[in-house]
Amino acid sequence: MTNEDGARTLNAAYQGERGAFSEEAASLLLGPDIQTTPCRTFDDMFDSVSGGTADCAVAPIENTLAGSVHKNYDLLIEHDLTIIGEAKLRITHNLIAPRRVSLNQIRRVYSHPVALAQCDRFFRSNPQIEAGPAYDTAGSVKMVVERDRPDEAAIAGPRAAAVYGAHVIAEGLEDNALNFTRFLLLARPDRARSITTRGAVDRRKTSLMFRLANRPGELFRALAAFALREVDLSKIESRPIEGRPWEYSFYIDVIGDQREPAVGQALAHLSEMTETVRVLGSYPAAEELGAGS
Amino acid sequence: MTNEDGARTLNAAYQGERGAFSEEAASLLLGPDIQTTPCRTFDDMFDSVSGGTADCAVAPIENTLAGSVHKNYDLLIEHDLTIIGEAKLRITHNLIAPRRVSLNQIRRVYSHPVALAQCDRFFRSNPQIEAGPAYDTAGSVKMVVERDRPDEAAIAGPRAAAVYGAHVIAEGLEDNALNFTRFLLLARPDRARSITTRGAVDRRKTSLMFRLANRPGELFRALAAFALREVDLSKIESRPIEGRPWEYSFYIDVIGDQREPAVGQALAHLSEMTETVRVLGSYPAAEELGAGS
Repeated sequence: MTNEDGARTLNAAYQGERGAFSEEAASLLLGPDIQTTPCRTFDDMFDSVSGGTADCAVAPIENTLAGSVHKNYDLLIEHDLTIIGEAKLRITHNLIAPRRVSLNQIRRVYSHPVALAQCDRFFRSNPQIEAGPAYDTAGSVKMVVERDRPDEAAIAGPRAAAVYGAHVIAEGLEDNALNFTRFLLLARPDRARSITTRGAVDRRKTSLMFRLANRPGELFRALAAFALREVDLSKIESRPIEGRPWEYSFYIDVIGDQREPAVGQALAHLSEMTETVRVLGSYPAAEELGAGS
Repeated sequence: MTNEDGARTLNAAYQGERGAFSEEAASLLLGPDIQTTPCRTFDDMFDSVSGGTADCAVAPIENTLAGSVHKNYDLLIEHDLTIIGEAKLRITHNLIAPRRVSLNQIRRVYSHPVALAQCDRFFRSNPQIEAGPAYDTAGSVKMVVERDRPDEAAIAGPRAAAVYGAHVIAEGLEDNALNFTRFLLLARPDRARSITTRGAVDRRKTSLMFRLANRPGELFRALAAFALREVDLSKIESRPIEGRPWEYSFYIDVIGDQREPAVGQALAHLSEMTETVRVLGSYPAAEELGAGS
């Protein structure tokens, strides 16, 4: 991936250690020829894009088992960034060891508690193995490689094994194979046009947030703006606004670009009904998805 | 809380260690005079209710920062349980030590990685303190109490300090005070009527799940069933059905009991539009919430 100037390498920030799923999503979205900057927290990641240290960020926004990451929606709005792409990644958990050992030599396995919980069947059928909590999946691989013990392993995605020169000794440990995370590619509005994502995709999506007061039929009327123009929805989620018990935020993804007449008119119509409509970005859709609006 | 027989103590299962936020939610919902059974995983918790070992379960279903726990929606449907109550708990993170020490003696603090991340400001302003990952918040208190070192502490809710006889040495470490988790009280349909939740609440909610194919306007039409009868929504969330790229599940909470005419008629109307309508339960609403349907 290149910038408009064709020379400078793009720098993508992500949360986690080298080899994290987010880093893999960055490579999916922007190609292998990018710089990636691991960040300790989501706040750090957003700060680095807002402050111009990084050109863009790759943020997990929803997972099929764990739901939406509201925290990243909040940061997206707080930082005035725009969505310029999305990627969907299958989350696979592999058993990764510093040495080429067999499974029956392993006595202790580290990973993020959520990943360990998603591999419950593996731990039940291998009671000789003790599970240990770690900060994150890729970080647990880094740790076992540094310790280099023959009876220790970590659970992480395949990229982490490659990054740390470790060995995958068992694949697909996850109980539920339908474990996908959707990542958003974020940039400052003034830099968004200089970043091109991989793959020629003719289908675009627009993400938006709006607020409604609590009156019966209010959401129904708001959705009419899309339904009457046959604009399709691919996501809808309500979120109570804490401290304002009678107001709700809605996060909606629609199929189409905000510059398309039907989408633009639907957004104008929606603005008549609510003061707070915030378009978070229009971007190439990662795949064929859509729910009737 | 008593059963219909007025004598046997109610047994509520929850995921986590003693002192967990879920245990506190159980006590909020059912009073202090219950037995609680900690379970290692959500699967174990659901199994214990389905199998009759526990009378009910208290399951986190959504958090204001982390979003919905789809995994528990899946288990709820898989196990044929019904929702009989809800509670909303403010998640506060306290620094808890085995001894009555001052903050400047602490060098290492353990908790679940998500809780540690939610206390980022605390760790930034106390760089002398190293953070360590643990399985869960209450479990980290249990661990530091067992180790009993003067320079170690854990981050968890106030209940965990009480349960393990530990000391709260700092309160409210969380960066964002608007951190709430909503818990659902679940029971087998044949046992639901024998369990009464605390508090006289005259306002009820009904949770349901339905599926729609992807045709523009489909969700709009489905919501008409509620809007035309002035039935108010308090939650809506779409979820792609993996492996069936053009179908979506919707999770909706409406204000009112399924036995009320307007709600019952709306559900019947919805059933005309989709084959899969699953009522997950009608139950006393925890508080005043509502988004325009």
